[in-house]
Amino acid sequence: MRRYFPILEWGRGYSRAILTDDLVAAVIVTIMLIPQSLAYALLAGLPPVVGLYASILPLVAYAIFGTSRTLAVGPVAVISLMTASAAGAVAAQGTAEYLEAAITLAFLSGIMLAVLGFLRAGFLANLLSHPVISGFITASGILIATSQLKHILGISAGGDNWPTMLASLAASIGETNLWTLAVGVPATLFLFWVRKGMKRSLLATGMNARAADIAIKAGPVLAVAVTILAAIAFNLAEKGVNLVGEIPAGLPPFALASTDLSLIEQLWVPALLISIIGFVESVSVAQTLAAKRRQRIAPDQELIGLGASNIASAFSGGYPVTGGFARSVVNFDAGAQTPAAGAFTAVGIALASLFLTPLLTSLPIATLAGVIIVAVLALVDFKTPGQLWRYSKADFAAHVATIGITLLAGVELGVIAGVGVGLLLYLWRASRPHAAIVGRMPETEHFRNVERHKVFTVPHVLSIRIDESLTYLNARWLEEYVLERVAERPELRHVILMASAVNEIDASGLESLEAINHRLIDGGIGLHLSEVKGPVMDRLQRTDFIEELNGRVYLSQSRAFDELLRDDGEDTAIPDDFPRGVI
Amino acid sequence: MRRYFPILEWGRGYSRAILTDDLVAAVIVTIMLIPQSLAYALLAGLPPVVGLYASILPLVAYAIFGTSRTLAVGPVAVISLMTASAAGAVAAQGTAEYLEAAITLAFLSGIMLAVLGFLRAGFLANLLSHPVISGFITASGILIATSQLKHILGISAGGDNWPTMLASLAASIGETNLWTLAVGVPATLFLFWVRKGMKRSLLATGMNARAADIAIKAGPVLAVAVTILAAIAFNLAEKGVNLVGEIPAGLPPFALASTDLSLIEQLWVPALLISIIGFVESVSVAQTLAAKRRQRIAPDQELIGLGASNIASAFSGGYPVTGGFARSVVNFDAGAQTPAAGAFTAVGIALASLFLTPLLTSLPIATLAGVIIVAVLALVDFKTPGQLWRYSKADFAAHVATIGITLLAGVELGVIAGVGVGLLLYLWRASRPHAAIVGRMPETEHFRNVERHKVFTVPHVLSIRIDESLTYLNARWLEEYVLERVAERPELRHVILMASAVNEIDASGLESLEAINHRLIDGGIGLHLSEVKGPVMDRLQRTDFIEELNGRVYLSQSRAFDELLRDDGEDTAIPDDFPRGVI
Repeated sequence: MRRYFPILEWGRGYSRAILTDDLVAAVIVTIMLIPQSLAYALLAGLPPVVGLYASILPLVAYAIFGTSRTLAVGPVAVISLMTASAAGAVAAQGTAEYLEAAITLAFLSGIMLAVLGFLRAGFLANLLSHPVISGFITASGILIATSQLKHILGISAGGDNWPTMLASLAASIGETNLWTLAVGVPATLFLFWVRKGMKRSLLATGMNARAADIAIKAGPVLAVAVTILAAIAFNLAEKGVNLVGEIPAGLPPFALASTDLSLIEQLWVPALLISIIGFVESVSVAQTLAAKRRQRIAPDQELIGLGASNIASAFSGGYPVTGGFARSVVNFDAGAQTPAAGAFTAVGIALASLFLTPLLTSLPIATLAGVIIVAVLALVDFKTPGQLWRYSKADFAAHVATIGITLLAGVELGVIAGVGVGLLLYLWRASRPHAAIVGRMPETEHFRNVERHKVFTVPHVLSIRIDESLTYLNARWLEEYVLERVAERPELRHVILMASAVNEIDASGLESLEAINHRLIDGGIGLHLSEVKGPVMDRLQRTDFIEELNGRVYLSQSRAFDELLRDDGEDTAIPDDFPRGVI
Repeated sequence: MRRYFPILEWGRGYSRAILTDDLVAAVIVTIMLIPQSLAYALLAGLPPVVGLYASILPLVAYAIFGTSRTLAVGPVAVISLMTASAAGAVAAQGTAEYLEAAITLAFLSGIMLAVLGFLRAGFLANLLSHPVISGFITASGILIATSQLKHILGISAGGDNWPTMLASLAASIGETNLWTLAVGVPATLFLFWVRKGMKRSLLATGMNARAADIAIKAGPVLAVAVTILAAIAFNLAEKGVNLVGEIPAGLPPFALASTDLSLIEQLWVPALLISIIGFVESVSVAQTLAAKRRQRIAPDQELIGLGASNIASAFSGGYPVTGGFARSVVNFDAGAQTPAAGAFTAVGIALASLFLTPLLTSLPIATLAGVIIVAVLALVDFKTPGQLWRYSKADFAAHVATIGITLLAGVELGVIAGVGVGLLLYLWRASRPHAAIVGRMPETEHFRNVERHKVFTVPHVLSIRIDESLTYLNARWLEEYVLERVAERPELRHVILMASAVNEIDASGLESLEAINHRLIDGGIGLHLSEVKGPVMDRLQRTDFIEELNGRVYLSQSRAFDELLRDDGEDTAIPDDFPRGVI
């Protein structure tokens, strides 16, 4: 019971002191979330108020089912972009069908996350390696920032990949609305300054650090307020500046996802990608924050928590949500102690959508675009490619492929290609594991690689150490590797496979061992194993392999080597002056 | 040059003795191949003569580009079934479009194989584990045998999965043609006897073993000859027995694959599956035979050899081919020494298609169906599931899933599902590698698992041995595992990661180590590494990690343990009576 309802755990120790902390955090996060939620809804191609709807019930659902104490759930940039891409493929922006597609995406994604949680399939998120995730986020940041330029310029433009976006912008740049530019550019520059320079300036005035931090959170609210006033004062609507316009005041409506099977067939792949990307982002944030306070999160239960949030979002007219990085850090820094802070934030946003929406009618869209651009450019990371190039060419390749394909072919193909390239490179390496021919280190029981150490070997006994589990991915390699080494050595009478690093032998690995055994029998050569781990040996004993083995299984490599030398009447003493790597 | 043209290698040592061996083998293989080629073309839904066409130029192309000395290339059962399934999806059997689709499949498959060969991508074949391959072959055998029953019964039936095939057979079983049955059943039983009991009977008559073997190869030819005579003698065509009918005599025509892009779009996935399955079958056979004579094959060059064979097949009006098990074993046993035997076989088949085809007009289809049924039932394997169940539940699951999905949803989905299930199970295990908390074995320098051995540990130093490379698949696990162990131990001051089994650390693994380091710094705990392998250390030194590490890198675990105890003023002597696994 407690596993599925973490609220029962933290709810019992709830006190007045924790309540105060949670309330303070909720106020700060609410102030920050209002402009951000509106902006991300815009990015998703939805009416701004949908961003508010998606920031109410999902927070409550996560407070009940989530395991992180400080994660803040709601609309985030990358998921908003993916929603725009998926919904845009089935309906035109601004239509009822488009909104229905967004709601359906949230519902499908919620169901998928919850099912993966019950199946304890959180491990699937591992398929996204760090280089793939960071490449995807960098490319998404570039795509998102580019997509918002049209709002700063006050022109119409489209495109769902970088080249078409740039071409579309270039085609209509002549129609730039200077009034829009006059709002958007200063607002964006101000927001950049809030993020980069404001804290220093405030500290220089003698303000204390905590107050300065809170003031920074209010920066976007200030930009929103000032540009609303400017829009009213200069009557910008008549000068061609796009404003948010009429927003229906009130609590989120009850909504239902579509049950149209052909729509679901079109949306399930994007919904799955949204689920996985959202889960990876959320779990990374939650883990980082939990570790700072030595708390733990349960990834499989997190799937259920995020699933519940998305289902709640769908039923309240919202779109896909996940745990966001920026808002969670603000929540954490503001002192949130429990998920109740999230529930209080939900109340704050609900009040905002009841009473503040009339004030937002005159908000210029360009201001929201500025909020988005400043938020996403912080995600773009130009240092990683160089670091990866120096550290690992394979990881660099996966990173660059993800960036390139995301920019050129859009977010969905970008993620899929990143996972594909990462997996192919992994499988390629897994199919060529490390193995070494080993010999005895003089006067020890240790056996080391003949290529790196001056070790003792004899021509008729070949010792091979396999540094990997034997699985189907390397089964063919194993046969080739062993038989090639054998073919090179006409004097050979015994092969010892040193299995100290073999943690598992699957059925394909076993078949390859059997094949090697049979081929060595044909050639009159014995096959022996040494240092087989307990669990591996237990399983081998359930088969005929040990019985059919043309040799023995030795507890230690040194015993195997000694006995096989002695059986053949050889002297096991190492000559004083033996050549390196004699075989 | 020699890499791409292995013929330059073996051609130089060609002698009269080798010529004799190759010629004898070619005669035997030709006799066996004629009925088999006709039968497999029938299985592929093509005119029987196409089977002959596909057994001429492909053999010549393989002789030039292939690396196996004894592999015999041509139509095989599973690939014929896959061809029928793919071509049947785009055109009706018996139409010119159907034949064009089959030729296009051969061409696409040839190009794909050759490209994979130049990219040295033979490792992709590793994705098919032994349990998946054997499951696929068993299920294909059942499907193929079932698909041929209609020819034995003389009825019409269809279906491309097992349930629909059985339902279709059941629906028209009342229309069984008794004359067809009177030909098909005895022919099939005779062929079974040839395979299972004939050799013993021949040996009992005093015939020598080699002569008996050759006689067995001629068994199907006998069945063909007798049923042709019966068809003529009893005028079976008029009694409703389906005969092969008019076959155009002559050499293979020159043919071109379709360049229709929409056809190619429909066929490329099946062509890729045909390529991979064909390659896996062929390489397994070639490797087995090469090893028996201590020869080697080069898998990447084999891709080029098979690619050339398929392209040759497409240009001569054939369909996809690969190295077949039965024919290659016959070629080997008959004493073939070089691929020239294959070229001579090609001449034999070419003569047959020039001069023998008029004789085959009256061959009952039921006889060919018998040839197929007897051949494929030898592939069905009922022992493997039980063996896998006892040895490995994961492999059993992949095997059974492949059989089930192949039978229920056809060959293409069967292969894809098998690869998918195998990969998922592999990734699931790879994301949860083995690790152990280790302690010192008394009076040694060895460190062993605290759960299995009575070892010495102290509460403030935690030694963890990771039995796996650190990659993106287990990076998240690593963080969770280490930080959970740390969270359990309030007295902890040092963590040592013993990296003796870590063969690689990719960028994601490195990031996890960095994250662990930072979190341990937050908690005032040192992080140390021991027994890091040379190549791994080389790469770590190209990063900031070692500099930022809140601890040291030790050459040996025992030195790390000793020093960390000594630094803290502890006594490293092990008390006489320490409890098991104290931490």
